[in-house]
Amino acid sequence: MINESMREMGRHRSCIRELFEYGKQQAAIVGKENVFDFSIGNPSIPAPEEVNTAIIDAVEKLDSITVHGYTSSSGNASLRDMVTDDLNKRYGTKLTNFNIFFTCGAAPAVVSAVRALAVPGSEIIALAPFFPEYRVYVEPNGAKLVIVPPDRPHFQINFTELEKRITAHTQAVIVNSPNNPTGVIYSQETLEKLAGLLRRKEEEVGHPIYIISDEPYRELVYDDAVVPFIPSIYPDTIVCYSFSKALSVPGERIGYVLVADTCTDEIPLMDAIMGAARSIGHVCAPSLQQRVVALCAGVRPDMRVYDKNRMRLYDALTSYGYECVKPQGAFYMFVKAPGGDAQAFSDGAKAKNLLIVPGNDFGCPDYLRISTCVSYEMLERSLPVFKELIEEQ
Amino acid sequence: MINESMREMGRHRSCIRELFEYGKQQAAIVGKENVFDFSIGNPSIPAPEEVNTAIIDAVEKLDSITVHGYTSSSGNASLRDMVTDDLNKRYGTKLTNFNIFFTCGAAPAVVSAVRALAVPGSEIIALAPFFPEYRVYVEPNGAKLVIVPPDRPHFQINFTELEKRITAHTQAVIVNSPNNPTGVIYSQETLEKLAGLLRRKEEEVGHPIYIISDEPYRELVYDDAVVPFIPSIYPDTIVCYSFSKALSVPGERIGYVLVADTCTDEIPLMDAIMGAARSIGHVCAPSLQQRVVALCAGVRPDMRVYDKNRMRLYDALTSYGYECVKPQGAFYMFVKAPGGDAQAFSDGAKAKNLLIVPGNDFGCPDYLRISTCVSYEMLERSLPVFKELIEEQ
Repeated sequence: MINESMREMGRHRSCIRELFEYGKQQAAIVGKENVFDFSIGNPSIPAPEEVNTAIIDAVEKLDSITVHGYTSSSGNASLRDMVTDDLNKRYGTKLTNFNIFFTCGAAPAVVSAVRALAVPGSEIIALAPFFPEYRVYVEPNGAKLVIVPPDRPHFQINFTELEKRITAHTQAVIVNSPNNPTGVIYSQETLEKLAGLLRRKEEEVGHPIYIISDEPYRELVYDDAVVPFIPSIYPDTIVCYSFSKALSVPGERIGYVLVADTCTDEIPLMDAIMGAARSIGHVCAPSLQQRVVALCAGVRPDMRVYDKNRMRLYDALTSYGYECVKPQGAFYMFVKAPGGDAQAFSDGAKAKNLLIVPGNDFGCPDYLRISTCVSYEMLERSLPVFKELIEEQ
Repeated sequence: MINESMREMGRHRSCIRELFEYGKQQAAIVGKENVFDFSIGNPSIPAPEEVNTAIIDAVEKLDSITVHGYTSSSGNASLRDMVTDDLNKRYGTKLTNFNIFFTCGAAPAVVSAVRALAVPGSEIIALAPFFPEYRVYVEPNGAKLVIVPPDRPHFQINFTELEKRITAHTQAVIVNSPNNPTGVIYSQETLEKLAGLLRRKEEEVGHPIYIISDEPYRELVYDDAVVPFIPSIYPDTIVCYSFSKALSVPGERIGYVLVADTCTDEIPLMDAIMGAARSIGHVCAPSLQQRVVALCAGVRPDMRVYDKNRMRLYDALTSYGYECVKPQGAFYMFVKAPGGDAQAFSDGAKAKNLLIVPGNDFGCPDYLRISTCVSYEMLERSLPVFKELIEEQ
């Protein structure tokens, strides 16, 4: 009399979490210095000073109920204003606090968007390689996840395969750029092509097809790369954002859903998202963190550490013969599995205490994800193991 | 192509939130001092000093990743140990950190428990008067909410009606003591009778029938009243706890699900709850607040302010002729509607800017909920209005 699919999801953690937990256990056995853990996307740089300053200021200077009390379910309106002000300044948009709904991170933001759009038969499209948790956010929440095969080796969008999968049931396409796991940024050209296709399909099917833009890595870019703001390209866009990566506060669970003011059903859609959030137990996003992220809306991450890791690993791995698209953002590298079987390669690496995630659950069983948000020292020490592994193929 | 039931839930806030928002608007028109808002259960006393000390210590003394980084989805194990240690000390239990799963407050804790137990045909029982959001937490999450009429005027449990409603589909009974809206604590006798009935029914139907004990008010008691710890009375108990009220941090969204070590299906049930949480976008509970509540696990609220309000309002209202059970805990009073129609009485009060919540959505359309977590000055100023209202009947 227990829901077995929930039980399965609880018993079997994501492949990422499984490897991460294994790494912690293994470290206790063989020593932390002998485990090379590239499994998890946990920001490895400290939160910028502004974060802790905002926290201390709030608790020292403001009254307790202002800091720790309930806010409206969307979040404190003046704090939401600070977030939309920052977006408007950067992107030339005219968003107001109505368009923003603070959530406990991007995960419940995506779940709320999915539940708001889940009608009988609903399909939500994910573009491989995709964050494996999308399956968990979509399928138990009333919609079917439809996968579009990857555009190898550049990892933009496979439009031929995408078009084939858009039906009258398609409610949304999830876009994740900068992408986890590839580090690729969808170009302006790619996004315009996507917008064109979706507009045409909207007309064909006679209802909106939303882009759910899951963009926790928006601020994490290298070499001054530009991340196009999708609501400026495609009107029917819902942005799911998290401050986890940009402010190095992934444990604090603070993000938002943004319903673009250009959405066909702007008001009913926001209502449905608020209702969906309520139905999953959302009361408000953590109140102190609402303040922190509003005050830090203009703070950008110091990318030097991630960039140093990226360049060192990219150069070393390609010199050993690994094939990989050079990441433009986020803190991952997506490497073609030598030998072609990512699971087998990951298992072989695991036997040498090198933890890299096979791409199977991302929709690419021939690629491996390497998180580059790690210590540089560990990265250096791991290089001979990477070399050894490819030489053994 | 939007989910209409989600939209409805977003459009129509809870009756409590509606009145609360109305109060804020009305304050802007007629002046804050002329609105007597008894609508919402927002703790009116500041968080104890230990809360802010724990916050400042964490950000000043610990490294950023320890404070703000991801924890395991259940929460930091050593912090969970501190919470179970406190429970074990108080209740003589032998809980370990396995039994505790930190959540973003009691609301997603209840949702996760419901989803874990939702199998086809599932029924979850609520005992009127009940927190209206239970409907939102249960019905969009795969189960049917079955209501048991109240035990007027003492507001313990109406056992005759409860027994009639237990079927082979019954998966759980939600218990909320100290109760919102009545302030009543279910007595040891009531709970033993409930345990006896459920044990008998478990045998009859051949599967566990859980108590979901939603107890955000556990620490909020008057006159040294005792709140029996339900897992010590009934083995198949899931506790949903929030620190919101005890530590005056309702905006921070921190609580837990506790699966008692005595539960028939302890391990699969915890797995299913973890899976259910994952499916609603739970990644971890806010990491800084996990630390705060663990360090403050032994801190109890200073009830003097609430008690002063309770006594003043109880004495005044009963002297005017209102009928009410004297609250033993929480910060509400549940008053019989003069004239018998709570909605009509609430509307009449609203016309005089006195905001009290009709009991309709709580399953008692002849009672009104008055929150006593208000300022004493407002309470004093409101008394002539309460007097006038009953005299007009």
